[in-house]
Amino acid sequence: MRDTPTSSSFTAHDQVAMAQALTWAALGIGLTDPNPRVGCVISDGRGRVLGAGHTQQAGGPHAEIMALRAAQADGHDVRGATVHVTLEPCAHHGRTPPCADALVAAGVGRVVAAVLDPNPLVAGQGLARLQAAGIQVAHGLMADAARELNIGFFSRMLRGRPWVRLKVAASLDGRTALPDGTSQWITGPEARADGHAWRRRAGAVLTGIGTVREDDPRLDVRLVPTARQPLRVVLDARLDTPPSARLLEVPGEVLLCCTAAALNSTRAAALSRSNVTLAPVQTDSNGWIDLPAVLETLARRGVNELHIEAGQHLNGSFVRAGLVDEYLVYLAPKLIGAGRDMAAFGPLAALADAAPLVFTDLTRVGGDVRLMARSATGFGSPA
Amino acid sequence: MRDTPTSSSFTAHDQVAMAQALTWAALGIGLTDPNPRVGCVISDGRGRVLGAGHTQQAGGPHAEIMALRAAQADGHDVRGATVHVTLEPCAHHGRTPPCADALVAAGVGRVVAAVLDPNPLVAGQGLARLQAAGIQVAHGLMADAARELNIGFFSRMLRGRPWVRLKVAASLDGRTALPDGTSQWITGPEARADGHAWRRRAGAVLTGIGTVREDDPRLDVRLVPTARQPLRVVLDARLDTPPSARLLEVPGEVLLCCTAAALNSTRAAALSRSNVTLAPVQTDSNGWIDLPAVLETLARRGVNELHIEAGQHLNGSFVRAGLVDEYLVYLAPKLIGAGRDMAAFGPLAALADAAPLVFTDLTRVGGDVRLMARSATGFGSPA
Repeated sequence: MRDTPTSSSFTAHDQVAMAQALTWAALGIGLTDPNPRVGCVISDGRGRVLGAGHTQQAGGPHAEIMALRAAQADGHDVRGATVHVTLEPCAHHGRTPPCADALVAAGVGRVVAAVLDPNPLVAGQGLARLQAAGIQVAHGLMADAARELNIGFFSRMLRGRPWVRLKVAASLDGRTALPDGTSQWITGPEARADGHAWRRRAGAVLTGIGTVREDDPRLDVRLVPTARQPLRVVLDARLDTPPSARLLEVPGEVLLCCTAAALNSTRAAALSRSNVTLAPVQTDSNGWIDLPAVLETLARRGVNELHIEAGQHLNGSFVRAGLVDEYLVYLAPKLIGAGRDMAAFGPLAALADAAPLVFTDLTRVGGDVRLMARSATGFGSPA
Repeated sequence: MRDTPTSSSFTAHDQVAMAQALTWAALGIGLTDPNPRVGCVISDGRGRVLGAGHTQQAGGPHAEIMALRAAQADGHDVRGATVHVTLEPCAHHGRTPPCADALVAAGVGRVVAAVLDPNPLVAGQGLARLQAAGIQVAHGLMADAARELNIGFFSRMLRGRPWVRLKVAASLDGRTALPDGTSQWITGPEARADGHAWRRRAGAVLTGIGTVREDDPRLDVRLVPTARQPLRVVLDARLDTPPSARLLEVPGEVLLCCTAAALNSTRAAALSRSNVTLAPVQTDSNGWIDLPAVLETLARRGVNELHIEAGQHLNGSFVRAGLVDEYLVYLAPKLIGAGRDMAAFGPLAALADAAPLVFTDLTRVGGDVRLMARSATGFGSPA
């Protein structure tokens, strides 16, 4: 079953209900990882909502179950009702029973999914199960928005790696710090809070050992409320993270990516604590940690969106390797002159060698501006 | 007479008429320099426009005269009419007779000026002359917009130097060129055309000898239509501009700012041509051209807005000297890594030493973005 819109069959009510379902789905940001953010609206087909909900934390109920429960709690009969759901209902037993079975059991009459399951091995199976039970099915309504909301989940399913978002805060002339590393604060409080909102939606926040030693960052979500903390990841080949590092102290899990050899060091022993995992990853011939291997490791751990806040060298390595899917750039209204760069790489042989990006966002955030850009041609490129 | 709004006396019709006059005034961009851009609307006081116009090229008629002529051409009687003009009518004999006298002779009943003449020596004299003739006068309506349209003229009158706008085109990571100087093209055709629209409104376009030697720019207005070419200015202490430089070939005047000693060189003789003026300016103890002296020189030549397109070193000198009033920054959606900076200066001792700016514009231009910022505290700072 291909994910081709069958838009001729969608009504104005379908549009409204799916837009509502997407609003519900967005409530799953910062909550559902590693599961996708899914919203569900059950209606009587004439615009009356009988129940709605969104997927809960991993292991908790999916959106369809939440919507069925809400309808039941309000005493609504959902037999023959229409279900709008932002992702195809699951047909397999995971940590929860299949949602498709629950919908069949509830006797709904029609199910509209925004997108099919991105996993090509199971895509279409949920709708097929519903159809086999005599339920009318359709899909492809507001598919772009639904995919975008779960771009990290789609990336992990389709590419086996997270959606990589690189965040930098810089001056108008592109400096992230003074030459001595001083970077607190280039941007204002609104931009910093906005940056935490982006951390919150990530499955993991990643930095390099240089930043840990220099800035001693916490890397947690503090400036906006959150139900969970993203995994904190440090690329630290030799396990040089000081046992007193603040990122080890704040609540949440920490993953230190290192060489296999470092696992046997005394430094490894000094870093042993309940919230710290040491993950051996491949290194290249120069002894540098292999970045694609890191992304694979994180994908296996269920990281959908990876948020990078690192220094110019690690940023440059990710850029040079072509692994950055999206740039999240805050620019402050000042010029700093000499200082640290956003990403140290190059020089390019020609301007045409710069990977083409597309600006996707341009917003004032307090006194600063936020620019977002993503690959013009790669996964997740704007239509 | 102080430039204090007397807004209680302004009617809705006043607002509409002055807004129209400002629209007329904007038609003077790229035309009136060194005179200000002024618009004038004559109406019957009940919303019917009898005549309107804007100031022409220097030596040509001012806005009031154009509006009176337009009314006459249409057979309208302007006796007792209301005149809305974006700048106080002049009371002195310049290259044209005083507009105040023409308005008195025409028998208009009321004159509303957006702003008084910025020259403190004559501010208020035009309105006083009208008032003495029995004409009702008011001022201060839409004064901010009127000043903004002529910010360079106000700067020259009040500070004795042009409004300095520094233009850069850079990658998202703040690079204006590859390390070898290659900069064609970082931004796209829309941004380049927009840059020429900003050149067009400037009285002069300035660069340094390094850019002349490296890029051989023309510095003229080509990508948008214009009635005149801005003066082209090169800071060229030793007169190293090659006689074959393209900026000497294209139509328009060129000013080469050099040391007094260079005037007697053979290079000076080689640069002798009708459209080239050699201007000796002060140098500091290191032999560098004194930038405030350059600005004074340009103000004396009637330059209201100065548009700088230079390399990182000259840009850095202007920034360091605190002489940049406004930044016009185009950012392209790409990262370049190693390369030239926007402005080479510093390092700063602390982030707090960066001069605070305020973003005044944030616009997509083709595939690029345009950011504008100006001093948060200096002349022309946003209210």
